Amino acid sequence: EIDRQRLWGELHKTCEWGVGERWGENPTDVGMHRLALSDDDKKARDWFVAAVQNLGCEVKIDAMGSIFAIRPGKKAGPPTYAGSHLDTQPTGGRYDGILGVHAGIEMLRTLNDGNVETEYPVGVINWTNEEGARFPISMVASGVWAGAVSLEKGHNLKEVNGPATQKSELERIKYLGTTEASHEVNPIGAHFELHIEQGPILEASGGKIGAVEGVQAYRWYTVTVKGRDCHTGTTDFRNRSDSMLTAAKLILHSHNKASEMGCLASTGILNLKPGSTNTVPGSVQFSLDMRSKENSKLLELEEVLRAEFPKIAAGDVVDCMNMAGTKGRGCEVEWRLDTDSPATKFHEVCVKCVQESAEAMLGTASTSLVRKMTSGAGHDSVYTSGRAPTSMIFVPCRDGVSHHPAEYCSPEDCGNGAQVLLGAVLRYDRL
Amino acid sequence: EIDRQRLWGELHKTCEWGVGERWGENPTDVGMHRLALSDDDKKARDWFVAAVQNLGCEVKIDAMGSIFAIRPGKKAGPPTYAGSHLDTQPTGGRYDGILGVHAGIEMLRTLNDGNVETEYPVGVINWTNEEGARFPISMVASGVWAGAVSLEKGHNLKEVNGPATQKSELERIKYLGTTEASHEVNPIGAHFELHIEQGPILEASGGKIGAVEGVQAYRWYTVTVKGRDCHTGTTDFRNRSDSMLTAAKLILHSHNKASEMGCLASTGILNLKPGSTNTVPGSVQFSLDMRSKENSKLLELEEVLRAEFPKIAAGDVVDCMNMAGTKGRGCEVEWRLDTDSPATKFHEVCVKCVQESAEAMLGTASTSLVRKMTSGAGHDSVYTSGRAPTSMIFVPCRDGVSHHPAEYCSPEDCGNGAQVLLGAVLRYDRL
Ligand SMILES: NC(=O)NCCC(=O)O
Ligand SMILES: NC(=O)NCCC(=O)O
Repeated sequence: EIDRQRLWGELHKTCEWGVGERWGENPTDVGMHRLALSDDDKKARDWFVAAVQNLGCEVKIDAMGSIFAIRPGKKAGPPTYAGSHLDTQPTGGRYDGILGVHAGIEMLRTLNDGNVETEYPVGVINWTNEEGARFPISMVASGVWAGAVSLEKGHNLKEVNGPATQKSELERIKYLGTTEASHEVNPIGAHFELHIEQGPILEASGGKIGAVEGVQAYRWYTVTVKGRDCHTGTTDFRNRSDSMLTAAKLILHSHNKASEMGCLASTGILNLKPGSTNTVPGSVQFSLDMRSKENSKLLELEEVLRAEFPKIAAGDVVDCMNMAGTKGRGCEVEWRLDTDSPATKFHEVCVKCVQESAEAMLGTASTSLVRKMTSGAGHDSVYTSGRAPTSMIFVPCRDGVSHHPAEYCSPEDCGNGAQVLLGAVLRYDRL
Repeated sequence: EIDRQRLWGELHKTCEWGVGERWGENPTDVGMHRLALSDDDKKARDWFVAAVQNLGCEVKIDAMGSIFAIRPGKKAGPPTYAGSHLDTQPTGGRYDGILGVHAGIEMLRTLNDGNVETEYPVGVINWTNEEGARFPISMVASGVWAGAVSLEKGHNLKEVNGPATQKSELERIKYLGTTEASHEVNPIGAHFELHIEQGPILEASGGKIGAVEGVQAYRWYTVTVKGRDCHTGTTDFRNRSDSMLTAAKLILHSHNKASEMGCLASTGILNLKPGSTNTVPGSVQFSLDMRSKENSKLLELEEVLRAEFPKIAAGDVVDCMNMAGTKGRGCEVEWRLDTDSPATKFHEVCVKCVQESAEAMLGTASTSLVRKMTSGAGHDSVYTSGRAPTSMIFVPCRDGVSHHPAEYCSPEDCGNGAQVLLGAVLRYDRL
């Protein structure tokens, strides 16, 4: 049995590093701002390393700064890990990622307290930059570990607003480790990840634990629209190449098409140049995050938009786009693929470990409280699942809100998740 | 006769302060980046003060940092001024504003060289922050001088990206003057402003000089869209309050409606929060610059948009907006009026001085080369014209391009403009 109060207390204690926006009256009603490889992330990492060393773990840090804490078992072999991340969104909450890491440490504490010897080693991983918020490839460190992203790409990845790269920041905060970021050199026996659902499904259906069977596909792009700066007062619409107006049409069209095809499309970043009220912007860059349960549908959506964006930018009428306005001189559109995370199916045995562990905790009433589900968000488990048996445990979060300071997971649900994580890891270890 | 080479040489010499983007191969094929009250603006101001003092002028600096250089005449009285501005857009050119100030100084030099005594004083003004690029109220200093903007508002105006105010920057660069910024305390006899047209009309029609009869109306707004941050992967469209998607619709709709009503609408600045690929933004602010030749039409456009924006933001179908997408939870829209510049009619006598001066220079063929016209852009002359007889002189600029590094006015057209400016000022002085 894990110590629910200890878990809750420790989690909120470490949220002093990266304090975000206050949204309520309780001491813990404060969001997080702990961007990957920032000074606050370093403090959280230092705490993590000290905590697991105190618990008798061996610590490895790899070339992407991911931290592996290993508690020896009876036999040697690849450890069964609880993994998640300590970085957050710029206006994130206290549970996304953080809960999973803390539950892993609580697992180690519980094993130590009970003098439990596992068959093989077990451990906890803190993956670097899961969010992809500061450096815009999500799950990039587990991606490098899995061989899906090259180390070079991971190291050279630049921050969204500034010159720093992941490598320069890893060096600066002294987390450029010596272990190769590689599933071959540093293998994982199995990977379990506890996470808040970040969506409304569990809460709406009264479920307490989600046994996650897979993750939907998503792709991130940076779209660049090139027009020409000109004066807003002296240039009539016919003589403009208005990159902001064009970007507005493309964002709206991506939403309309995604709607029609049952996919998601979202723009979370937009930067324009030069940025003056009376200058029509000559250049806009925006992010496009598209998702679907099916790889093929996502690719189809991309194909449609790649074909239609240049037409819309040229001023041709596409659906209701460009119908009511004045046709200008047109803009050019470029796409860059930043993140590619295909649909993922988790390992059946791992899903079963989660399910059985949840049922053991919840008792007889458990059938309707444990739900098999698919994740809308990506997680490091996507990349580990290509290289090791993997599953995830979801717990409800209030109103399905995440990536928002008011993200909230109750002490009860945090404790439930950690208990199921411990059970799932021990079950897998015994198999 | 002005010295055309001296004018050209001096103008480009002072463009070393605020060097922008290179766009061609000639030494002067380089744009400008000289934001109001920046270090580079200070250097240009210091040069201006030294130059006019060398020419024997009295110098006054007012509480908004506008600089008045006065060359005494036979009789005392309010001077006839040549006025314009030395500040530029972030990616501006070498002629917008700068030409007008340099032509004024060339006028003083020519009068000195020829020992010409005018009836009344003549002078040159460098108005502060005409562009409204860094501090987002255009022509703010002539606005304060004219009593149309309060000194408090002018002083407290904040920069677009940062905490500085106009007053704090005036203090920092030591141009917070002691003369009251007031048309009563510091009167203007008449105001002539030479400027590049910034549009394509003169060039397209083969005109050489525009005698400007007035300026179209414009209003600047900051529109704020409030939604709610959420996760791009786990939040379906129905559960979103997507402020970026909403802003895209509003920008497109403002273009469509302006098109329909023969007005202009443009967005040159857009900032969103929090700015992460996988977070649907909860807040967007964008600038809206709307223009029309008629005040009433501009107000009508505003009224229509003020009525329709909230509907579009709520997800109602307005024209083709919201037709193809999924209705979400809606966003809220707020408007703030930043600049209000009503349509302006210049003084008939001044327009006549410009016309006669142009005809004198261009000779017999002049009828088709001198054109009466309306300005699409605002100028400090808008505010002076409420308090003193005013007109402007336009010269062609290549392809009508302005607010762009490649803005270009030929040596011939620069010289023509300066010659007409001198002639117009002397004509008015004699009246
Ligand atoms: N869980 C989470 O927010 N991961 C980041 C990757 C994504 O956007 O799905
Ligand atoms: N001439 C000029 O660009 N003035 C700034 C005010 C405006 O945007 O019209």
